[in-house]
Amino acid sequence: MGVSRGSDRGGELASVLDRLAAEREPALGRLFRLLAIPSVSTDPAFHAHCLAAAEWCAGALREIGFEAEIRPTSGKPIVVGHWREQSAGARTRVLFYGHYDVQPADPLEEWSAPPFSPQLTPDPRYGTVIVARGASDDKGQVMTFIEACRAWLDVHGRLPVDVTVLIEGEEESGSPSLAPFLEQHAEELQADVALVCDTGQWDERTPAITAFLRGLAFSEITITGPSRDLHSGIYGGPARNPIKALTKLMVELHDADGRVTLPGFYDDVMRPSEAQLAQWQSLGFDAAAFLGGVGLREPAGEAGVSVLEQLWSRPTAEINGIFGGYTGPGTKTVIPSRATAKLSFRLVPNQDPRKILDGLHRFVAERLPPDCTASFAGEGGSPAVGFDTAAPAFKAAAKALEQEWGKPPVIIGCGASIPIVESFRSRLGMEALLVGFSLDDDRIHSPNEKYNLESFIKGARSWARILHELGGADADAGI
Amino acid sequence: MGVSRGSDRGGELASVLDRLAAEREPALGRLFRLLAIPSVSTDPAFHAHCLAAAEWCAGALREIGFEAEIRPTSGKPIVVGHWREQSAGARTRVLFYGHYDVQPADPLEEWSAPPFSPQLTPDPRYGTVIVARGASDDKGQVMTFIEACRAWLDVHGRLPVDVTVLIEGEEESGSPSLAPFLEQHAEELQADVALVCDTGQWDERTPAITAFLRGLAFSEITITGPSRDLHSGIYGGPARNPIKALTKLMVELHDADGRVTLPGFYDDVMRPSEAQLAQWQSLGFDAAAFLGGVGLREPAGEAGVSVLEQLWSRPTAEINGIFGGYTGPGTKTVIPSRATAKLSFRLVPNQDPRKILDGLHRFVAERLPPDCTASFAGEGGSPAVGFDTAAPAFKAAAKALEQEWGKPPVIIGCGASIPIVESFRSRLGMEALLVGFSLDDDRIHSPNEKYNLESFIKGARSWARILHELGGADADAGI
Repeated sequence: MGVSRGSDRGGELASVLDRLAAEREPALGRLFRLLAIPSVSTDPAFHAHCLAAAEWCAGALREIGFEAEIRPTSGKPIVVGHWREQSAGARTRVLFYGHYDVQPADPLEEWSAPPFSPQLTPDPRYGTVIVARGASDDKGQVMTFIEACRAWLDVHGRLPVDVTVLIEGEEESGSPSLAPFLEQHAEELQADVALVCDTGQWDERTPAITAFLRGLAFSEITITGPSRDLHSGIYGGPARNPIKALTKLMVELHDADGRVTLPGFYDDVMRPSEAQLAQWQSLGFDAAAFLGGVGLREPAGEAGVSVLEQLWSRPTAEINGIFGGYTGPGTKTVIPSRATAKLSFRLVPNQDPRKILDGLHRFVAERLPPDCTASFAGEGGSPAVGFDTAAPAFKAAAKALEQEWGKPPVIIGCGASIPIVESFRSRLGMEALLVGFSLDDDRIHSPNEKYNLESFIKGARSWARILHELGGADADAGI
Repeated sequence: MGVSRGSDRGGELASVLDRLAAEREPALGRLFRLLAIPSVSTDPAFHAHCLAAAEWCAGALREIGFEAEIRPTSGKPIVVGHWREQSAGARTRVLFYGHYDVQPADPLEEWSAPPFSPQLTPDPRYGTVIVARGASDDKGQVMTFIEACRAWLDVHGRLPVDVTVLIEGEEESGSPSLAPFLEQHAEELQADVALVCDTGQWDERTPAITAFLRGLAFSEITITGPSRDLHSGIYGGPARNPIKALTKLMVELHDADGRVTLPGFYDDVMRPSEAQLAQWQSLGFDAAAFLGGVGLREPAGEAGVSVLEQLWSRPTAEINGIFGGYTGPGTKTVIPSRATAKLSFRLVPNQDPRKILDGLHRFVAERLPPDCTASFAGEGGSPAVGFDTAAPAFKAAAKALEQEWGKPPVIIGCGASIPIVESFRSRLGMEALLVGFSLDDDRIHSPNEKYNLESFIKGARSWARILHELGGADADAGI
């Protein structure tokens, strides 16, 4: 009485956060035990360790009250755990995704400590960091969520929403078993939203939600000219060289302003809102550092479009590979019969990969020089993803993150597609919420991978708050 | 008295030609014995046969009065034979070149008779043809010269000029031993002109002297952009793609009229004389058939320049190979760090390969986009050759061929360089006279190689006449 439900629920969260604070040491111990298992999925020699990691995750879920199982696949098993409120009616239900497998640790000699002997190490910038293979990608991130659930269940005996946890073991191997598994268990895995914890923050003080993922269309084009390879002495001059024809097409893919010239290429392009663009503008993204890190100084691409906007919200045409004629050592004066280029197009929301490839075919047909034919192979693609930032789950997460970090999350894009997001969409008809706490300098896939201790602590607190918000926290229940 | 020296010498030739007619059967027998030796130089299994062919050639030369030896090299031996008039003063001296080695005969199943069992076969177009590996390239051609010498020596006991015969055994393997051999024996092999019998006629009724050989300059250019291969999702758009930069350079190598745009490229280009161009015009070269044979219809290259003129007298820029990025099966969305093209330039007389490559370096430097560097590797080249058609030996050969064939020889070009010609120039300071009797449809290097019986007969007669003319035949001594 006199205590509003909002305050009730605010208090509910506060005790969970307290519990997380009290559990810091044991939580770290649990993470270290998982990190100690060398669950490298790409190397068959580590297969048993992958099974052990799966067992460990299932056990951790069972320990806190989930019904958890290891499900076999044709590759590494997938861990599935459920926590559902039996008595309740229609509740929000989330599907959490992470992976227990890690990248190989090579080169071992570049690690300052053994990669599967996790260490707490002082760091001049970040205070204390957890160093181990998988610390950031993805075991540390997975455990932020499990620790948040543990605290909720420890304190309240329940979670604010129904939760299914899915932890796969082949993410570093291209997730070959995941899509069929989702399809096969679609009903069991159905949820309102997928929570994916495998992405990063904007910086160590600024949380982020990844809301734009570029799509992809790809094609391999082969231009054939003469019916066989020709001696360039005997035929050089009047004989058409397909390398020449191919390079001309490749150049003409872009105009002088760096815009893609395929017919209709920009017809369906959706731009982020002005507000979104303004937010990106305000981020103070260091384009010089981004490009400088790979030896570049001047941004290429579309004239007048910022690097960040290009990466997160503009479509591209790229030549990923080219080959034709003699490519061995030394000289061979041949005019080849054919030349091939591998092309890919990064797409933004609303662009249809099929339509883009149709445009490519038209583009080539219109420009094909005499005596040349074009063939296309290995085509495919997937559309871009733009999450609805006004969706309830998105808003809930944004609010929770702002409460934890003291500033609203940056809504960021990712230039690349994330295949699992596409799988959740296409196999389960489910949107994803991409929230993670890694940082760009976590050295994932490299020696001395680390996860900030603060990422681990505040990550778990963030999830505790997100679960709270997803469960319908009062809009005023600020903590 | 009353009988002019011209008539004397005309009679001298007539008897040689009569002798050749009388010797037809035994001459064919000799050629067949040489053709029966499978002297494939590229296959070590045939090494002993190569030695046998060398022995056979040396024996054939000794039999007709040459001092002949087999000279070892680090590869196949070289046959050298001399016939010199001991008593004479300064006489014209020629160095005849041919090769006793042959291409492999594979695929054997496509031969209508065993490749080293020479056959006389009726031919609907040419009457009778000699079918065997090496019949045209080059044993048949070598024997036209040796038979001409035999007839001269049989009838007159002397040759009109001093003759050195050099028959190598590695022509089909790139002649690795020839250039050092020439250098080592420069004094012994010195002559006024080299007679090279390894080329062809214009057609079966029209003799030819090859007087233009294009030169070559070559380079491998690598464009480097980012310091490492990049993920096209993460970097695609603002990151400069070196394949793009390279393809642009490749396109800009030519202008819209197909002319090469390297600075100074045409500065030193020597054009054939108007008379020479007119002769080529009059040849009725079937460009459609030439291009059609390799699946092409429309001539590429320089606008407004005929196919024959392009091939024989115009310089070119060709992309012989290109590679960069991912070239394996399937898709890999990479922006590569570097891309490479192999370029070659066919040169015409007076162009300097070094100057052409300098022009390439300037061309690239002027066009290099930001953040890209260019490096060049494997550069080299050799100048074009244009023989002086007014030189005495050239005129003598032209006159002799006209007398034999009833029409003047066509002065033709060859789009490719012929390395031995360059070797005679650079090692012995000697020009070459390229006269041969093969035809385009002799199927050299292919199954069922043939040499027309008439090529063999009239080839020997042609050499008998050429020797006569080189020896200073009276200008009126027509036969």
